[in-house]
Amino acid sequence: MSKPSDVRRVAIVGATHGNEMAGGVLVDKWRRRPELATRPSFETRLFIGNPRARELVVRYVDRDLNRSFAPESLEDLDAGAYEVERARTILGEIGAAGAWPADVVFDLHTTTAAMKKTIVLVNHAPFNLELAAWAQAHDEEVRVFSWLDESLPRRSLASAFARGVTLEFGPTPQGVLRAETLAFMERTLGACLDFVEAHNRGAAPERGSGKLECFTYVRREDYPRDASGAPTAAVHPELQDRDYQALENGAPIFLGYDGEVYRLEVEPGRVLYPVFVNEAAYYEKGVAFCLTERQVLSV
Amino acid sequence: MSKPSDVRRVAIVGATHGNEMAGGVLVDKWRRRPELATRPSFETRLFIGNPRARELVVRYVDRDLNRSFAPESLEDLDAGAYEVERARTILGEIGAAGAWPADVVFDLHTTTAAMKKTIVLVNHAPFNLELAAWAQAHDEEVRVFSWLDESLPRRSLASAFARGVTLEFGPTPQGVLRAETLAFMERTLGACLDFVEAHNRGAAPERGSGKLECFTYVRREDYPRDASGAPTAAVHPELQDRDYQALENGAPIFLGYDGEVYRLEVEPGRVLYPVFVNEAAYYEKGVAFCLTERQVLSV
Repeated sequence: MSKPSDVRRVAIVGATHGNEMAGGVLVDKWRRRPELATRPSFETRLFIGNPRARELVVRYVDRDLNRSFAPESLEDLDAGAYEVERARTILGEIGAAGAWPADVVFDLHTTTAAMKKTIVLVNHAPFNLELAAWAQAHDEEVRVFSWLDESLPRRSLASAFARGVTLEFGPTPQGVLRAETLAFMERTLGACLDFVEAHNRGAAPERGSGKLECFTYVRREDYPRDASGAPTAAVHPELQDRDYQALENGAPIFLGYDGEVYRLEVEPGRVLYPVFVNEAAYYEKGVAFCLTERQVLSV
Repeated sequence: MSKPSDVRRVAIVGATHGNEMAGGVLVDKWRRRPELATRPSFETRLFIGNPRARELVVRYVDRDLNRSFAPESLEDLDAGAYEVERARTILGEIGAAGAWPADVVFDLHTTTAAMKKTIVLVNHAPFNLELAAWAQAHDEEVRVFSWLDESLPRRSLASAFARGVTLEFGPTPQGVLRAETLAFMERTLGACLDFVEAHNRGAAPERGSGKLECFTYVRREDYPRDASGAPTAAVHPELQDRDYQALENGAPIFLGYDGEVYRLEVEPGRVLYPVFVNEAAYYEKGVAFCLTERQVLSV
Protein backbone atom coordinates (compact mmCIF):
# COMPACT_ATOMS: atom_id res chain seq x y z
CA MET A 1 0.00 0.00 0.00
CA SER A 2 1.48 3.27 -1.10
CA LYS A 3 1.82 6.26 1.20
CA PRO A 4 2.20 9.91 0.27
CA SER A 5 5.70 11.39 0.15
CA ASP A 6 7.30 8.03 -0.11
CA VAL A 7 8.90 8.38 -3.54
CA ARG A 8 12.26 10.03 -3.18
CA ARG A 9 14.23 8.45 -5.99
CA VAL A 10 13.01 7.88 -9.54
CA ALA A 11 15.16 6.03 -12.07
CA ILE A 12 14.55 6.35 -15.80
CA VAL A 13 16.24 3.83 -18.06
CA GLY A 14 16.51 4.21 -21.84
CA ALA A 15 18.14 1.95 -24.44
CA THR A 16 17.62 -1.22 -22.44
CA HIS A 17 17.39 -2.50 -26.00
CA GLY A 18 20.12 -0.87 -28.06
CA ASN A 19 18.14 -0.55 -31.30
CA GLU A 20 15.13 1.16 -29.71
CA MET A 21 16.36 4.66 -30.31
CA ALA A 22 13.86 7.02 -28.66
CA GLY A 23 14.60 6.02 -25.06
CA GLY A 24 18.31 6.68 -25.39
CA VAL A 25 17.70 10.01 -27.13
CA LEU A 26 15.27 11.07 -24.41
CA VAL A 27 17.73 10.11 -21.64
CA ASP A 28 20.45 12.12 -23.41
CA LYS A 29 18.12 15.11 -23.76
CA TRP A 30 16.97 15.06 -20.15
CA ARG A 31 20.57 14.75 -18.96
CA ARG A 32 21.22 18.01 -20.81
CA ARG A 33 18.04 19.51 -19.35
CA PRO A 34 17.60 17.83 -15.95
CA GLU A 35 14.77 20.18 -14.97
CA LEU A 36 12.55 18.24 -17.39
CA ALA A 37 13.25 14.91 -15.66
CA THR A 38 12.25 15.74 -12.13
CA ARG A 39 9.65 17.44 -9.95
CA PRO A 40 10.08 19.25 -6.61
CA SER A 41 9.40 16.30 -4.28
CA PHE A 42 11.84 13.73 -5.66
CA GLU A 43 15.19 13.24 -7.33
CA THR A 44 15.58 11.59 -10.75
CA ARG A 45 18.53 9.77 -12.24
CA LEU A 46 18.83 8.78 -15.86
CA PHE A 47 20.48 5.62 -17.14
CA ILE A 48 21.39 4.01 -20.45
CA GLY A 49 20.46 0.36 -19.98
CA ASN A 50 22.67 -1.25 -22.60
CA PRO A 51 25.38 1.16 -23.81
CA ARG A 52 27.29 -1.40 -25.86
CA ALA A 53 24.18 -2.60 -27.69
CA ARG A 54 23.18 1.01 -28.27
CA GLU A 55 26.53 1.76 -29.85
CA LEU A 56 26.15 -1.26 -32.13
CA VAL A 57 22.45 -0.46 -32.79
CA VAL A 58 21.42 -4.00 -31.87
CA ARG A 59 18.85 -5.22 -29.37
CA TYR A 60 21.52 -6.92 -27.27
CA VAL A 61 25.06 -8.21 -27.45
CA ASP A 62 24.93 -11.64 -25.74
CA ARG A 63 21.39 -12.03 -24.42
CA ASP A 64 18.24 -9.94 -24.01
CA LEU A 65 18.89 -7.57 -21.08
CA ASN A 66 15.16 -7.24 -20.52
CA ARG A 67 15.00 -11.01 -19.90
CA SER A 68 18.09 -11.04 -17.68
CA PHE A 69 16.71 -9.87 -14.36
CA ALA A 70 15.68 -13.34 -13.20
CA PRO A 71 17.61 -14.33 -10.06
CA GLU A 72 18.94 -17.45 -11.75
CA SER A 73 20.48 -15.57 -14.66
CA LEU A 74 22.13 -13.18 -12.27
CA GLU A 75 23.59 -16.04 -10.31
CA ASP A 76 24.96 -18.40 -12.87
CA LEU A 77 23.25 -18.57 -16.26
CA ASP A 78 25.51 -17.14 -18.94
CA ALA A 79 27.78 -15.78 -16.27
CA GLY A 80 30.08 -14.21 -18.85
CA ALA A 81 27.29 -12.50 -20.77
CA TYR A 82 27.57 -8.73 -21.10
CA GLU A 83 23.89 -8.25 -20.28
CA VAL A 84 24.15 -10.30 -17.07
CA GLU A 85 26.92 -7.91 -16.03
CA ARG A 86 24.70 -4.98 -16.98
CA ALA A 87 21.79 -6.36 -14.94
CA ARG A 88 24.11 -6.74 -11.94
CA THR A 89 25.45 -3.22 -12.42
CA ILE A 90 21.96 -1.72 -12.73
CA LEU A 91 20.72 -3.51 -9.61
CA GLY A 92 23.93 -2.50 -7.81
CA GLU A 93 23.01 1.11 -8.52
CA ILE A 94 19.23 1.30 -8.20
CA GLY A 95 18.19 -2.07 -6.71
CA ALA A 96 16.81 -2.45 -3.19
CA ALA A 97 20.31 -3.17 -1.86
CA GLY A 98 21.95 -0.77 -4.30
CA ALA A 99 23.89 2.44 -3.83
CA TRP A 100 20.89 4.62 -4.71
CA PRO A 101 17.81 2.42 -4.26
CA ALA A 102 15.12 3.70 -6.60
CA ASP A 103 11.55 3.87 -5.35
CA VAL A 104 10.12 3.98 -8.87
CA VAL A 105 11.66 2.80 -12.14
CA PHE A 106 10.53 3.67 -15.67
CA ASP A 107 11.99 1.55 -18.46
CA LEU A 108 11.61 3.09 -21.94
CA HIS A 109 10.97 0.97 -25.02
CA THR A 110 9.76 1.19 -28.58
CA THR A 111 8.12 -1.52 -30.65
CA THR A 112 7.45 -2.23 -34.30
CA ALA A 113 3.85 -2.99 -33.24
CA ALA A 114 1.22 -0.24 -33.40
CA MET A 115 0.87 -0.04 -29.62
CA LYS A 116 0.82 3.76 -29.62
CA LYS A 117 1.48 4.72 -25.96
CA THR A 118 1.38 1.66 -23.75
CA ILE A 119 2.09 1.30 -20.04
CA VAL A 120 3.09 -2.30 -19.36
CA LEU A 121 2.39 -3.39 -15.79
CA VAL A 122 4.09 -6.49 -14.41
CA ASN A 123 2.23 -6.29 -11.13
CA HIS A 124 -0.93 -4.62 -9.86
CA ALA A 125 0.55 -2.82 -6.87
CA PRO A 126 -1.84 0.05 -6.01
CA PHE A 127 0.80 2.63 -6.92
CA ASN A 128 1.22 1.14 -10.39
CA LEU A 129 -2.54 1.01 -11.01
CA GLU A 130 -2.98 4.58 -9.82
CA LEU A 131 -0.14 5.77 -12.03
CA ALA A 132 -1.62 4.01 -15.07
CA ALA A 133 -5.08 5.42 -14.36
CA TRP A 134 -3.63 8.91 -14.04
CA ALA A 135 -1.76 8.62 -17.34
CA GLN A 136 -4.86 7.29 -19.05
CA ALA A 137 -7.04 10.07 -17.61
CA HIS A 138 -4.59 12.65 -18.98
CA ASP A 139 -4.28 11.11 -22.46
CA GLU A 140 -6.94 8.91 -23.94
CA GLU A 141 -4.41 7.31 -26.29
CA VAL A 142 -2.62 5.68 -23.35
CA ARG A 143 -3.27 1.94 -23.15
CA VAL A 144 -2.42 -0.35 -20.25
CA PHE A 145 -1.19 -3.90 -20.83
CA SER A 146 -0.94 -6.13 -17.76
CA TRP A 147 1.68 -8.76 -18.46
CA LEU A 148 1.32 -10.67 -15.22
CA ASP A 149 1.95 -14.11 -16.70
CA GLU A 150 3.32 -16.16 -13.86
CA SER A 151 5.57 -17.98 -16.28
CA LEU A 152 7.59 -14.78 -16.71
CA PRO A 153 8.57 -13.85 -13.16
CA ARG A 154 11.26 -11.30 -12.51
CA ARG A 155 12.86 -11.39 -15.90
CA SER A 156 12.30 -7.85 -17.13
CA LEU A 157 14.01 -4.82 -15.67
CA ALA A 158 10.69 -3.43 -14.44
CA SER A 159 9.78 -6.72 -12.77
CA ALA A 160 12.81 -6.42 -10.50
CA PHE A 161 11.07 -3.49 -8.76
CA ALA A 162 7.77 -3.33 -6.86
CA ARG A 163 7.12 -0.03 -8.61
CA GLY A 164 8.71 -0.83 -11.94
CA VAL A 165 6.86 0.24 -15.07
CA THR A 166 7.70 -0.42 -18.72
CA LEU A 167 6.64 2.12 -21.32
CA GLU A 168 6.23 1.02 -24.95
CA PHE A 169 5.74 3.30 -27.96
CA GLY A 170 5.09 2.33 -31.54
CA PRO A 171 5.01 1.56 -34.33
CA THR A 172 8.60 2.47 -34.92
CA PRO A 173 11.23 0.40 -36.73
CA GLN A 174 14.32 -0.79 -34.92
CA GLY A 175 17.23 1.53 -35.58
CA VAL A 176 14.95 4.45 -36.48
CA LEU A 177 14.12 7.56 -34.49
CA ARG A 178 10.73 8.99 -35.38
CA ALA A 179 10.04 12.50 -34.09
CA GLU A 180 6.46 11.57 -33.25
CA THR A 181 7.54 8.57 -31.18
CA LEU A 182 10.02 10.68 -29.23
CA ALA A 183 7.30 13.28 -28.57
CA PHE A 184 4.84 10.60 -27.39
CA MET A 185 7.45 9.15 -25.08
CA GLU A 186 8.41 12.52 -23.61
CA ARG A 187 4.80 13.49 -23.00
CA THR A 188 3.73 10.18 -21.46
CA LEU A 189 6.78 9.95 -19.23
CA GLY A 190 6.16 13.56 -18.18
CA ALA A 191 2.61 12.63 -17.15
CA CYS A 192 4.02 9.73 -15.12
CA LEU A 193 6.36 12.12 -13.31
CA ASP A 194 3.43 14.47 -12.69
CA PHE A 195 1.62 11.56 -11.08
CA VAL A 196 4.57 10.79 -8.81
CA GLU A 197 4.63 14.44 -7.74
CA ALA A 198 0.87 14.45 -7.08
CA HIS A 199 1.19 11.19 -5.17
CA ASN A 200 3.96 12.59 -2.98
CA ARG A 201 1.97 15.74 -2.27
CA GLY A 202 -1.15 13.73 -1.45
CA ALA A 203 -2.81 15.30 -4.49
CA ALA A 204 -3.35 12.13 -6.48
CA PRO A 205 -6.98 11.02 -6.86
CA GLU A 206 -8.40 9.25 -3.83
CA ARG A 207 -8.18 5.49 -3.76
CA GLY A 208 -11.30 3.98 -5.30
CA SER A 209 -12.32 7.10 -7.19
CA GLY A 210 -11.03 6.07 -10.59
CA LYS A 211 -11.37 3.47 -13.30
CA LEU A 212 -8.59 1.81 -15.22
CA GLU A 213 -9.10 0.15 -18.60
CA CYS A 214 -6.57 -2.62 -18.66
CA PHE A 215 -5.68 -5.31 -21.22
CA THR A 216 -4.59 -8.44 -19.38
CA TYR A 217 -2.38 -11.12 -20.92
CA VAL A 218 -4.19 -14.32 -21.86
CA ARG A 219 -1.87 -16.16 -24.22
CA ARG A 220 0.58 -15.81 -27.05
CA GLU A 221 0.34 -16.97 -30.67
CA ASP A 222 3.36 -18.08 -32.68
CA TYR A 223 3.69 -17.95 -36.46
CA PRO A 224 2.82 -21.11 -38.37
CA ARG A 225 6.21 -22.72 -39.01
CA ASP A 226 7.65 -25.52 -41.12
CA ALA A 227 9.61 -28.51 -39.82
CA SER A 228 12.82 -26.45 -39.79
CA GLY A 229 11.19 -23.76 -37.64
CA ALA A 230 10.94 -21.15 -40.40
CA PRO A 231 7.67 -19.20 -40.48
CA THR A 232 5.31 -20.13 -43.33
CA ALA A 233 2.89 -17.23 -42.91
CA ALA A 234 2.85 -13.52 -42.15
CA VAL A 235 0.55 -11.62 -39.84
CA HIS A 236 -2.69 -11.15 -41.79
CA PRO A 237 -3.15 -7.67 -43.27
CA GLU A 238 -6.42 -7.38 -41.32
CA LEU A 239 -4.50 -7.85 -38.06
CA GLN A 240 -1.32 -5.94 -38.94
CA ASP A 241 -1.19 -2.53 -37.17
CA ARG A 242 -4.43 -3.26 -35.28
CA ASP A 243 -3.17 -3.74 -31.77
CA TYR A 244 -5.96 -3.42 -29.16
CA GLN A 245 -8.72 -3.99 -31.72
CA ALA A 246 -11.29 -6.61 -30.77
CA LEU A 247 -10.89 -10.12 -32.21
CA GLU A 248 -13.40 -12.93 -32.09
CA ASN A 249 -13.40 -16.56 -33.07
CA GLY A 250 -12.63 -16.93 -36.78
CA ALA A 251 -10.86 -13.60 -37.23
CA PRO A 252 -8.05 -13.85 -39.81
CA ILE A 253 -4.70 -13.78 -38.05
CA PHE A 254 -2.13 -15.14 -40.52
CA LEU A 255 -1.77 -15.17 -44.30
CA GLY A 256 0.30 -18.11 -45.52
CA TYR A 257 3.01 -17.36 -48.04
CA ASP A 258 1.03 -19.52 -50.46
CA GLY A 259 -2.26 -17.76 -49.70
CA GLU A 260 -3.81 -19.84 -46.91
CA VAL A 261 -5.77 -17.87 -44.30
CA TYR A 262 -5.33 -18.90 -40.67
CA ARG A 263 -8.08 -17.93 -38.25
CA LEU A 264 -8.25 -17.28 -34.53
CA GLU A 265 -9.58 -20.10 -32.42
CA VAL A 266 -11.28 -18.95 -29.26
CA GLU A 267 -14.52 -19.84 -27.45
CA PRO A 268 -17.45 -18.37 -29.43
CA GLY A 269 -18.55 -15.09 -27.91
CA ARG A 270 -15.27 -14.37 -26.18
CA VAL A 271 -13.52 -11.16 -27.26
CA LEU A 272 -9.75 -10.88 -27.17
CA TYR A 273 -7.46 -7.96 -27.98
CA PRO A 274 -4.03 -8.37 -29.62
CA VAL A 275 -0.85 -6.58 -28.55
CA PHE A 276 2.73 -6.72 -29.80
CA VAL A 277 1.45 -7.60 -33.28
CA ASN A 278 4.47 -8.37 -35.50
CA GLU A 279 7.11 -7.07 -33.10
CA ALA A 280 10.48 -7.62 -34.82
CA ALA A 281 12.25 -8.86 -31.71
CA TYR A 282 9.66 -11.53 -30.96
CA TYR A 283 10.24 -13.70 -34.03
CA GLU A 284 13.09 -15.38 -32.14
CA LYS A 285 10.88 -15.71 -29.07
CA GLY A 286 8.13 -17.54 -30.96
CA VAL A 287 5.58 -14.76 -30.52
CA ALA A 288 3.65 -13.30 -33.46
CA PHE A 289 1.37 -11.43 -31.05
CA CYS A 290 -0.09 -11.68 -27.56
CA LEU A 291 -3.79 -11.89 -26.82
CA THR A 292 -5.36 -10.01 -23.94
CA GLU A 293 -8.70 -9.59 -22.26
CA ARG A 294 -10.16 -6.17 -21.57
CA GLN A 295 -10.94 -5.38 -17.95
CA VAL A 296 -12.06 -2.26 -16.15
CA LEU A 297 -10.59 -2.04 -12.67
CA SER A 298 -11.56 0.27 -9.84
CA VAL A 299 -8.47 2.12 -8.71
CA MET B 1 20.83 -1.36 -77.54
CA SER B 2 18.59 -4.25 -76.56
CA LYS B 3 17.46 -6.82 -79.06
CA PRO B 4 14.48 -9.18 -78.86
CA SER B 5 15.10 -12.71 -77.57
CA ASP B 6 18.35 -11.75 -75.96
CA VAL B 7 17.46 -12.46 -72.33
CA ARG B 8 18.06 -16.11 -71.60
CA ARG B 9 19.07 -16.03 -67.96
CA VAL B 10 17.41 -14.00 -65.21
CA ALA B 11 18.84 -13.95 -61.70
CA ILE B 12 16.75 -12.89 -58.72
CA VAL B 13 18.57 -12.15 -55.48
CA GLY B 14 16.83 -11.79 -52.11
CA ALA B 15 18.29 -11.07 -48.66
CA THR B 16 21.26 -9.13 -49.99
CA HIS B 17 20.63 -7.42 -46.67
CA GLY B 18 19.91 -10.06 -44.05
CA ASN B 19 17.33 -8.08 -42.08
CA GLU B 20 15.19 -7.20 -45.09
CA MET B 21 12.89 -10.17 -44.78
CA ALA B 22 10.55 -10.07 -47.76
CA GLY B 23 13.17 -10.76 -50.43
CA GLY B 24 14.38 -13.94 -48.74
CA VAL B 25 10.84 -15.16 -48.16
CA LEU B 26 9.95 -14.54 -51.80
CA VAL B 27 13.06 -16.40 -53.02
CA ASP B 28 12.16 -19.34 -50.74
CA LYS B 29 8.60 -19.34 -52.02
CA TRP B 30 9.56 -19.20 -55.69
CA ARG B 31 12.09 -21.98 -55.17
CA ARG B 32 9.17 -24.11 -53.96
CA ARG B 33 7.04 -22.94 -56.89
CA PRO B 34 9.50 -22.28 -59.73
CA GLU B 35 6.70 -21.80 -62.25
CA LEU B 36 6.06 -18.40 -60.63
CA ALA B 37 9.64 -17.24 -61.18
CA THR B 38 9.99 -17.76 -64.88
CA ARG B 39 8.31 -17.28 -68.23
CA PRO B 40 8.55 -19.41 -71.39
CA SER B 41 11.41 -17.56 -73.12
CA PHE B 42 14.01 -17.55 -70.35
CA GLU B 43 15.38 -19.43 -67.39
CA THR B 44 15.40 -17.99 -63.85
CA ARG B 45 17.65 -18.79 -60.93
CA LEU B 46 17.03 -17.64 -57.39
CA PHE B 47 19.73 -16.65 -54.91
CA ILE B 48 20.02 -15.64 -51.28
CA GLY B 49 22.51 -12.78 -51.30
CA ASN B 50 23.76 -12.91 -47.75
CA PRO B 51 22.79 -16.19 -46.05
CA ARG B 52 24.83 -15.63 -42.90
CA ALA B 53 23.42 -12.14 -42.32
CA ARG B 54 19.95 -13.50 -42.98
CA GLU B 55 20.39 -16.18 -40.35
CA LEU B 56 21.55 -13.53 -37.86
CA VAL B 57 18.80 -11.08 -38.99
CA VAL B 58 21.35 -8.31 -39.49
CA ARG B 59 22.03 -6.13 -42.52
CA TYR B 60 25.53 -7.54 -42.90
CA VAL B 61 28.21 -9.39 -40.99
CA ASP B 62 31.44 -7.54 -41.85
CA ARG B 63 30.52 -4.90 -44.42
CA ASP B 64 27.52 -3.89 -46.52
CA LEU B 65 27.27 -6.46 -49.33
CA ASN B 66 25.38 -3.96 -51.46
CA ARG B 67 28.41 -1.65 -51.28
CA SER B 68 30.89 -4.44 -51.94
CA PHE B 69 30.71 -4.82 -55.70
CA ALA B 70 33.28 -2.13 -56.43
CA PRO B 71 36.32 -3.63 -58.17
CA GLU B 72 38.65 -2.36 -55.45
CA SER B 73 36.78 -4.10 -52.64
CA LEU B 74 36.78 -7.33 -54.59
CA GLU B 75 40.50 -7.09 -55.11
CA ASP B 76 41.91 -6.12 -51.80
CA LEU B 77 39.81 -3.98 -49.46
CA ASP B 78 38.71 -6.00 -46.43
CA ALA B 79 39.96 -9.11 -48.12
CA GLY B 80 38.84 -11.30 -45.21
CA ALA B 81 35.34 -9.83 -45.07
CA TYR B 82 32.49 -12.32 -45.46
CA GLU B 83 30.63 -10.00 -47.81
CA VAL B 84 33.65 -9.61 -50.11
CA GLU B 85 33.67 -13.40 -50.39
CA ARG B 86 29.92 -13.34 -51.10
CA ALA B 87 30.37 -10.69 -53.81
CA ARG B 88 33.06 -12.85 -55.41
CA THR B 89 30.86 -15.95 -55.18
CA ILE B 90 27.86 -14.17 -56.67
CA LEU B 91 29.90 -12.78 -59.58
CA GLY B 92 31.46 -16.21 -60.03
CA GLU B 93 27.99 -17.61 -60.55
CA ILE B 94 26.08 -14.92 -62.44
CA GLY B 95 28.71 -12.36 -63.49
CA ALA B 96 29.78 -11.82 -67.10
CA ALA B 97 32.64 -14.31 -66.66
CA GLY B 98 30.63 -16.53 -64.32
CA ALA B 99 29.37 -20.09 -64.62
CA TRP B 100 25.85 -18.96 -65.51
CA PRO B 101 26.16 -15.37 -66.74
CA ALA B 102 22.86 -13.63 -66.07
CA ASP B 103 21.47 -11.30 -68.70
CA VAL B 104 19.20 -9.54 -66.20
CA VAL B 105 19.49 -9.29 -62.42
CA PHE B 106 16.80 -8.23 -59.95
CA ASP B 107 17.99 -7.43 -56.44
CA LEU B 108 15.19 -7.36 -53.84
CA HIS B 109 15.18 -4.91 -50.93
CA THR B 110 12.92 -3.39 -48.33
CA THR B 111 13.29 -0.02 -46.63
CA THR B 112 11.96 1.69 -43.52
CA ALA B 113 11.17 4.65 -45.80
CA ALA B 114 7.71 4.98 -47.32
CA MET B 115 8.96 4.32 -50.85
CA LYS B 116 6.07 2.00 -51.66
CA LYS B 117 7.18 0.15 -54.84
CA THR B 118 10.37 1.64 -56.20
CA ILE B 119 12.54 0.55 -59.10
CA VAL B 120 16.05 1.87 -58.55
CA LEU B 121 18.01 2.32 -61.76
CA VAL B 122 21.78 2.66 -61.64
CA ASN B 123 22.07 3.26 -65.36
CA HIS B 124 19.75 4.33 -68.15
CA ALA B 125 20.36 1.48 -70.54
CA PRO B 126 17.35 1.33 -72.89
CA PHE B 127 16.35 -2.08 -71.53
CA ASN B 128 16.23 -0.71 -67.97
CA LEU B 129 14.18 2.34 -68.96
CA GLU B 130 11.77 0.21 -70.94
CA LEU B 131 11.37 -2.21 -68.04
CA ALA B 132 10.69 0.63 -65.61
CA ALA B 133 8.18 2.25 -67.98
CA TRP B 134 6.40 -1.09 -68.39
CA ALA B 135 6.18 -1.63 -64.63
CA GLN B 136 4.91 1.91 -64.13
CA ALA B 137 2.33 1.54 -66.89
CA HIS B 138 1.04 -1.63 -65.21
CA ASP B 139 0.89 -0.19 -61.67
CA GLU B 140 0.61 3.52 -61.01
CA GLU B 141 2.13 3.08 -57.54
CA VAL B 142 5.48 2.12 -59.05
CA ARG B 143 8.07 4.87 -58.74
CA VAL B 144 11.44 5.03 -60.45
CA PHE B 145 14.50 6.40 -58.69
CA SER B 146 17.59 6.95 -60.84
CA TRP B 147 20.61 6.74 -58.60
CA LEU B 148 23.22 7.51 -61.20
CA ASP B 149 25.53 9.46 -58.90
CA GLU B 150 28.97 9.06 -60.42
CA SER B 151 30.46 8.98 -56.95
CA LEU B 152 28.88 5.56 -56.41
CA PRO B 153 30.12 3.51 -59.34
CA ARG B 154 29.83 -0.24 -59.32
CA ARG B 155 29.29 -0.67 -55.63
CA SER B 156 25.81 -2.15 -55.51
CA LEU B 157 24.98 -5.61 -56.74
CA ALA B 158 22.77 -4.21 -59.49
CA SER B 159 25.50 -1.84 -60.65
CA ALA B 160 27.74 -4.81 -61.47
CA PHE B 161 25.36 -5.67 -64.34
CA ALA B 162 24.38 -3.66 -67.42
CA ARG B 163 20.83 -4.87 -66.85
CA GLY B 164 20.84 -4.85 -63.08
CA VAL B 165 17.79 -3.45 -61.29
CA THR B 166 17.21 -2.90 -57.58
CA LEU B 167 13.67 -3.13 -56.25
CA GLU B 168 12.79 -1.38 -52.98
CA PHE B 169 9.57 -1.79 -50.99
CA GLY B 170 8.48 0.06 -47.90
CA PRO B 171 7.88 1.20 -45.31
CA THR B 172 8.74 -1.97 -43.47
CA PRO B 173 10.88 -2.29 -40.35
CA GLN B 174 14.08 -4.28 -40.41
CA GLY B 175 13.51 -7.79 -39.11
CA VAL B 176 9.77 -7.68 -39.86
CA LEU B 177 7.84 -9.39 -42.63
CA ARG B 178 4.68 -7.51 -43.56
CA ALA B 179 2.22 -9.44 -45.72
CA GLU B 180 1.46 -6.32 -47.74
CA THR B 181 5.14 -5.71 -48.51
CA LEU B 182 5.59 -9.31 -49.64
CA ALA B 183 2.54 -9.00 -51.90
CA PHE B 184 3.81 -5.72 -53.40
CA MET B 185 7.19 -7.30 -54.06
CA GLU B 186 5.74 -10.41 -55.66
CA ARG B 187 3.43 -8.40 -57.90
CA THR B 188 6.04 -5.88 -59.02
CA LEU B 189 8.67 -8.52 -59.68
CA GLY B 190 6.07 -10.50 -61.62
CA ALA B 191 5.43 -7.45 -63.80
CA CYS B 192 9.17 -7.15 -64.41
CA LEU B 193 9.29 -10.80 -65.55
CA ASP B 194 6.30 -10.16 -67.80
CA PHE B 195 8.26 -7.32 -69.37
CA VAL B 196 11.27 -9.57 -70.00
CA GLU B 197 8.98 -12.09 -71.66
CA ALA B 198 7.34 -9.38 -73.81
CA HIS B 199 10.78 -8.02 -74.69
CA ASN B 200 12.01 -11.44 -75.77
CA ARG B 201 8.92 -12.03 -77.87
CA GLY B 202 9.22 -8.61 -79.49
CA ALA B 203 5.93 -7.67 -77.83
CA ALA B 204 7.23 -4.87 -75.63
CA PRO B 205 6.08 -1.36 -76.60
CA GLU B 206 7.97 0.18 -79.48
CA ARG B 207 10.97 2.30 -78.70
CA GLY B 208 9.91 5.94 -78.29
CA SER B 209 6.25 5.17 -77.70
CA GLY B 210 6.25 5.55 -73.93
CA LYS B 211 6.91 7.98 -71.14
CA LEU B 212 8.77 7.31 -67.91
CA GLU B 213 8.38 9.43 -64.80
CA CYS B 214 11.72 9.25 -63.13
CA PHE B 215 13.15 10.79 -59.93
CA THR B 216 16.84 11.50 -60.44
CA TYR B 217 19.33 11.81 -57.61
CA VAL B 218 20.45 15.36 -56.86
CA ARG B 219 22.05 15.24 -53.42
CA ARG B 220 21.82 13.78 -49.96
CA GLU B 221 21.07 15.43 -46.60
CA ASP B 222 22.60 14.25 -43.35
CA TYR B 223 21.09 14.71 -39.89
CA PRO B 224 22.25 17.73 -37.90
CA ARG B 225 24.90 16.27 -35.58
CA ASP B 226 26.86 17.37 -32.53
CA ALA B 227 30.65 17.46 -32.24
CA SER B 228 30.73 13.76 -31.35
CA GLY B 229 28.78 12.89 -34.49
CA ALA B 230 25.52 12.02 -32.70
CA PRO B 231 22.36 13.31 -34.41
CA THR B 232 20.69 16.27 -32.68
CA ALA B 233 17.46 16.23 -34.67
CA ALA B 234 14.94 13.81 -36.13
CA VAL B 235 13.31 13.88 -39.54
CA HIS B 236 10.52 16.46 -39.26
CA PRO B 237 7.03 14.97 -38.87
CA GLU B 238 5.97 16.84 -42.02
CA LEU B 239 8.66 15.02 -44.01
CA GLN B 240 8.45 11.59 -42.31
CA ASP B 241 6.66 9.01 -44.52
CA ARG B 242 6.38 11.53 -47.38
CA ASP B 243 8.83 10.13 -49.87
CA TYR B 244 8.27 11.48 -53.40
CA GLN B 245 6.24 14.47 -52.18
CA ALA B 246 7.34 17.85 -53.54
CA LEU B 247 9.59 20.02 -51.35
CA GLU B 248 10.50 23.62 -51.94
CA ASN B 249 12.86 26.07 -50.30
CA GLY B 250 11.96 26.50 -46.62
CA ALA B 251 10.16 23.19 -46.18
CA PRO B 252 10.68 21.77 -42.66
CA ILE B 253 13.05 18.82 -42.86
CA PHE B 254 14.35 18.22 -39.31
CA LEU B 255 12.97 18.76 -35.81
CA GLY B 256 15.73 19.27 -33.25
CA TYR B 257 15.46 17.28 -30.04
CA ASP B 258 15.09 20.63 -28.29
CA GLY B 259 12.43 21.89 -30.70
CA GLU B 260 14.39 23.75 -33.36
CA VAL B 261 13.00 23.47 -36.90
CA TYR B 262 15.52 23.01 -39.74
CA ARG B 263 14.41 23.98 -43.22
CA LEU B 264 15.37 22.93 -46.71
CA GLU B 265 17.70 25.25 -48.55
CA VAL B 266 17.31 25.18 -52.30
CA GLU B 267 17.08 27.77 -55.05
CA PRO B 268 13.68 29.49 -54.84
CA GLY B 269 11.28 27.98 -57.33
CA ARG B 270 13.12 24.68 -57.64
CA VAL B 271 11.12 21.62 -56.62
CA LEU B 272 12.84 18.55 -55.19
CA TYR B 273 11.45 15.18 -54.12
CA PRO B 274 12.80 13.19 -51.17
CA VAL B 275 13.48 9.46 -51.17
CA PHE B 276 14.88 7.08 -48.53
CA VAL B 277 13.46 9.34 -45.80
CA ASN B 278 14.62 8.00 -42.42
CA GLU B 279 15.96 4.67 -43.70
CA ALA B 280 17.37 2.83 -40.67
CA ALA B 281 20.49 1.61 -42.42
CA TYR B 282 21.53 5.06 -43.61
CA TYR B 283 22.19 6.62 -40.19
CA GLU B 284 25.67 5.10 -40.33
CA LYS B 285 26.10 6.33 -43.89
CA GLY B 286 25.30 9.94 -42.98
CA VAL B 287 22.10 10.05 -45.02
CA ALA B 288 18.80 11.24 -43.53
CA PHE B 289 17.24 11.31 -47.01
CA CYS B 290 18.15 11.84 -50.65
CA LEU B 291 16.75 14.60 -52.81
CA THR B 292 15.74 14.02 -56.40
CA GLU B 293 14.42 15.93 -59.37
CA ARG B 294 11.40 14.77 -61.30
CA GLN B 295 11.92 14.11 -65.00
CA VAL B 296 9.72 12.65 -67.69
CA LEU B 297 11.73 10.67 -70.21
CA SER B 298 10.66 9.38 -73.58
CA VAL B 299 11.30 5.67 -73.71
